[in-house]
Amino acid sequence: MQAVGIVVEYNPFHNGHAYHLEQAKKAAQADLVIAVMSGTFLQRGEPAMVDKWTRTKMALSGGVDIVIELPYVYSTAPATDFAKGAISLLSAVGCNSFAFGSEDGSIQPFLNTFELIDSHRAEYDLFIKDSLKTGASYPKSLHYAYEQLSQMYPAPYIDLAQPNNILGFHYLEAARALNSNIKPLTIPRVAAGYHDALKEDASIASATGIRKALASTNSLQSVQNVVPTATFDYLTDWHTKYNQFASWETFWPLLQFTIIRHTPSELTRYAEVTEGIENAIVKAAKNSSTFYSFMEKIKSKRYTWTRLQRMITHIYTGFTKKQLQSFNAPSFIRLLGMSSTGQAYLGQQKKNIELPLISRVAATNDAMLAIDIHAAELYNLSIEQGTKDFTLPKDYQTPPIRC
Amino acid sequence: MQAVGIVVEYNPFHNGHAYHLEQAKKAAQADLVIAVMSGTFLQRGEPAMVDKWTRTKMALSGGVDIVIELPYVYSTAPATDFAKGAISLLSAVGCNSFAFGSEDGSIQPFLNTFELIDSHRAEYDLFIKDSLKTGASYPKSLHYAYEQLSQMYPAPYIDLAQPNNILGFHYLEAARALNSNIKPLTIPRVAAGYHDALKEDASIASATGIRKALASTNSLQSVQNVVPTATFDYLTDWHTKYNQFASWETFWPLLQFTIIRHTPSELTRYAEVTEGIENAIVKAAKNSSTFYSFMEKIKSKRYTWTRLQRMITHIYTGFTKKQLQSFNAPSFIRLLGMSSTGQAYLGQQKKNIELPLISRVAATNDAMLAIDIHAAELYNLSIEQGTKDFTLPKDYQTPPIRC
Repeated sequence: MQAVGIVVEYNPFHNGHAYHLEQAKKAAQADLVIAVMSGTFLQRGEPAMVDKWTRTKMALSGGVDIVIELPYVYSTAPATDFAKGAISLLSAVGCNSFAFGSEDGSIQPFLNTFELIDSHRAEYDLFIKDSLKTGASYPKSLHYAYEQLSQMYPAPYIDLAQPNNILGFHYLEAARALNSNIKPLTIPRVAAGYHDALKEDASIASATGIRKALASTNSLQSVQNVVPTATFDYLTDWHTKYNQFASWETFWPLLQFTIIRHTPSELTRYAEVTEGIENAIVKAAKNSSTFYSFMEKIKSKRYTWTRLQRMITHIYTGFTKKQLQSFNAPSFIRLLGMSSTGQAYLGQQKKNIELPLISRVAATNDAMLAIDIHAAELYNLSIEQGTKDFTLPKDYQTPPIRC
Repeated sequence: MQAVGIVVEYNPFHNGHAYHLEQAKKAAQADLVIAVMSGTFLQRGEPAMVDKWTRTKMALSGGVDIVIELPYVYSTAPATDFAKGAISLLSAVGCNSFAFGSEDGSIQPFLNTFELIDSHRAEYDLFIKDSLKTGASYPKSLHYAYEQLSQMYPAPYIDLAQPNNILGFHYLEAARALNSNIKPLTIPRVAAGYHDALKEDASIASATGIRKALASTNSLQSVQNVVPTATFDYLTDWHTKYNQFASWETFWPLLQFTIIRHTPSELTRYAEVTEGIENAIVKAAKNSSTFYSFMEKIKSKRYTWTRLQRMITHIYTGFTKKQLQSFNAPSFIRLLGMSSTGQAYLGQQKKNIELPLISRVAATNDAMLAIDIHAAELYNLSIEQGTKDFTLPKDYQTPPIRC
């Protein structure tokens, strides 16, 4: 059986995802789709709006055959490590190819870009050096070098100013580093821009747009056109029970207390918390009654919003620099759900899967997995404290979803 | 001017405290009363039911002339260190004597007890050794040795099974160790036992009884007979604003999150958290929806309820073993409030006061004081998050109360 892998957050699963899924399967001529999905906290440094089990159900309803969890260590990491974790899991689970959405939409320019840099490494490094000398930042200097090089050797290259192209570039980079046979495919992104608001009568919107609509109107009806019925029903059910969609805004009382409980210098223990920002974080937390007003106080030219949110995530979960440094690569494949096709595939592939396949966490004692369980416990608690009557599925007790 | 010192928590100030105050002044033939009062967290390891500023107002209304704060480092410590911190502050502020309530009620038996142990140290140590050999605990062995000694050399001694006698003993011990001229006095405790429920028509009840009555009936009327009018008014005002009296039960959501956020081994960083109990604490927190049910799960023969609550306090505030070890003695006198008599006294005594007298914390950079400010910030936040509209006085902005 041929399997195509995709990297997803499904926050929440929407019509654009359904389209991407279908296109990926077609482009790869695959029998099934395997999604590596971020668990509880996401790449932009925020809690998922609903838990991983609900998002797994959405994925399976939407046509995914196997959902495996991208561990916290990678799901909350900058793009390079995020891509490394995701692609190595898709490769380990036996995918023949992986497909990603990109602004560019065809794979050749991605390959050209790699070829360009690979064959002119010395010039590239020189351009970077020159740019750094002028005082430019490292990412800016990388971009400058790439621009120079692509003008010197014209060909169709990708535009590395586009967010999905960048992510795709990192996926390819990860696949190359793995020395894996997994084949990259890309699918053009359609219709909705990344941060666009919902448009009337459109059937496709970005997940960001959907979350914004839900936060501002507080009405589920507003997103009915842009998500599959199954997603709509799962969202409705969740909101009835928990009376919120998880966000830093709803977690703010616990987050605020957690920050203020620390002295500034203690905060620098946590992953990505750069020395120099700790005083601003504590001071802002003391003087803010909402997460948004807190972020407005700490944002600066030096740190992107996403970067700051990732610091906040690690402070919230207590994930330290020391822990981060102790991991090199994913050490297991955590199965969150599967269709009957997915189950058949796993039965067939069993011997070829390169990492332990984990269906029940209770039997396992893995440090990286312990972090996922811990993050899920804190996530669940943050939601349950407001409701008391409903409890979320616990990692220790929940078998993979089947459908 | 002659000043008598007392050691108080005033949680809350009640008629028994008013009586004690009057008797102390009389017994010492003093012109004024100076109270060293625990700030935010108390000796039994729990948050004060109302903040230190409100309790200072109650104290001044009740006849205290100067209120100074017992720093967190001492206010949450076992009896020996609690007494050491309190008595050294009363001595440093120039008190000629200090008075404490005791079951015994006269000072000679306290002095006899000291004399007995002092003059028979070798025998005493031998008894302790013998008892430890039988497998008895250290406190039990101390008590056994004392019993044996007091039978060998009969005289009126204090009964060291009574809680206030024990505390008094530690006060005297602290005064001796200080080599200070401060003179000990004791006043018999009247009417209410330590943990007794409120009795109808009684005008005196214990603070514990009062807190229990407030927690169970949730009606302020139930305590009207046993507290001064001023206390009653302050309590009413507080409850109208904040809709709760602070307790571990009302702080439970934040405490539960704080505990679960840690791995068990991380908890052993905090003061008094003995290795071996960390797993039980985390496990119990995960499975409890109230503080009481949590405590029921971790209590054991080995640890008293109070001892466990002190661990919990240090976990909540993030107070580590390392911090605790860094302090030797109080390094300042923090003024919380004063009457005009108190003000006159301080003006007169200025040159004799042995430690920096702090009225405004903003001007000071003292590590021990930083812990008090930190504890108050967390305490305030824990209460304010439920109300939003009202904010408690901040240490940085609040001058001493005058009346």
